[in-house]
Amino acid sequence: MSIDLTNTQPIGIVGLGLIGGSLGLDFRAKGLSVIGVSRQEKTCKIALERGSVTVAGTDFSLLASAKVIFICTPISLIVPTIKKLIPYLKPETIITDVASVKEEIVTHIDPLWNNFIGGHPMAGTAEQGIESALKGLFKNAPYILTPTQKTSKESINTLTQLVQLLGSKLHFSTPTDHDQAVAWISHLPVMISASLIQSCLQENHLSILELGQKLASSGFKDTSRVGGGNPELGVMMAQHNRTALLHSLKEYKSTLEGIITLIEEKNWSGLDQILQNTKKQRSLYLK
Amino acid sequence: MSIDLTNTQPIGIVGLGLIGGSLGLDFRAKGLSVIGVSRQEKTCKIALERGSVTVAGTDFSLLASAKVIFICTPISLIVPTIKKLIPYLKPETIITDVASVKEEIVTHIDPLWNNFIGGHPMAGTAEQGIESALKGLFKNAPYILTPTQKTSKESINTLTQLVQLLGSKLHFSTPTDHDQAVAWISHLPVMISASLIQSCLQENHLSILELGQKLASSGFKDTSRVGGGNPELGVMMAQHNRTALLHSLKEYKSTLEGIITLIEEKNWSGLDQILQNTKKQRSLYLK
Repeated sequence: MSIDLTNTQPIGIVGLGLIGGSLGLDFRAKGLSVIGVSRQEKTCKIALERGSVTVAGTDFSLLASAKVIFICTPISLIVPTIKKLIPYLKPETIITDVASVKEEIVTHIDPLWNNFIGGHPMAGTAEQGIESALKGLFKNAPYILTPTQKTSKESINTLTQLVQLLGSKLHFSTPTDHDQAVAWISHLPVMISASLIQSCLQENHLSILELGQKLASSGFKDTSRVGGGNPELGVMMAQHNRTALLHSLKEYKSTLEGIITLIEEKNWSGLDQILQNTKKQRSLYLK
Repeated sequence: MSIDLTNTQPIGIVGLGLIGGSLGLDFRAKGLSVIGVSRQEKTCKIALERGSVTVAGTDFSLLASAKVIFICTPISLIVPTIKKLIPYLKPETIITDVASVKEEIVTHIDPLWNNFIGGHPMAGTAEQGIESALKGLFKNAPYILTPTQKTSKESINTLTQLVQLLGSKLHFSTPTDHDQAVAWISHLPVMISASLIQSCLQENHLSILELGQKLASSGFKDTSRVGGGNPELGVMMAQHNRTALLHSLKEYKSTLEGIITLIEEKNWSGLDQILQNTKKQRSLYLK
């Protein structure tokens, strides 16, 4: 099966921010027609000017002819947006989203729409908004799809081909496995990194804290980077992936307690064994 | 007071590895005469070939004429090395070291030698050995000196001028404050970063662990970097800075527990407050 590239079956994008705008740039570069919908007329205008969309407007009825619709709104708006959008669509329209958590969304949408496939392109920049949209943002980045037992093979094939057009590395997973994997490698690091910055404030002697700030170099900078990032995103991860994140946080805490005990007991061979192992293990995440 | 740059009062370096070899390169580039001592003749030969030293040998008697001697051996050899070296020296010779922990060493050496000043140049690479020695390694890097009440102003002045020759950013501190500051910004990050890699192994489902390894991107890579580093160095930090590191680790654990509680209680405004704060605080370490 190949994608219909004619204008009669365009791609729809709801939410024209960094992700939605960048998807539009890539799809248009591949010759696809893109209909963009944003709540704000100003955003529609910029998306048209920047070339992210072929057509843009504030009205969901624009999307009636779309073959595949990407929901790129903030995470808390995804479910209400899809509920409002559905009355305008033909039943064969494929809906997908781009949120960094999947179980909560798939659980809500799966009963409402037969052709929904959760998606998560793992790409971004520190910037936000249509002004930051970039061509090639998804190239070589992981892109996870979380089809359910309800999802038709044909819909999976269509979305697969679109993701491959972006040059992303495609992975399939259940929504639950996705959320736990992302908790380990993305949401847990944010919380432990933030805890590092926050815990330094527990130092009672201001002179030591200030000396630490002067001496901090690449080790502190790298370990604290994601904990000093966008607070809104951090809270969003915890809200929408709470169960998986708490599981990872508790396993992390118990691992940390193990390391504290080894140091208290001066068990240097035990500590060496762990550090030998973490050195070896880390390379498995760098492929 | 200015430094005597004549060959009659050369700089001594014991231990010709990355740090010792790099110090030699910089001092020689400034026209100073450098005497190197290593346990291995082969290392002396390479140090001479690479231009780190003017003279090199395996015998401490070579250092009898040195004005300032930098002890650049592995941390566990610093105290025994100084004890063996002392019989060869004039009492006005200044001894300094380059270890990343100070209290343990200063406590041992202060009663033995009037002109000892602990030092810690915070520079390095992932490499080791004389082959990795680099010119300009210490430029713009922090260099901490930890004089005690016993240390003469004249000795501090001489060492200060040498550190300034390297282009380092000089800081003064007590050995105890140094060790606690370094525990916060260097040794604690290693342990919490290693705990991240190690805790992922607690995931019971291999498929989730493997998915996480595929999805890991810059957030995981940065947060896990120092925890996947040299195991020997990590154990050394814990052994020689145990008290300060345990203090930081326990404050860290209690901060982490606070964050877990906020997420358990769905206290999103509380979590937001912390993440707003860590975002602001982090900038203080990046100057």
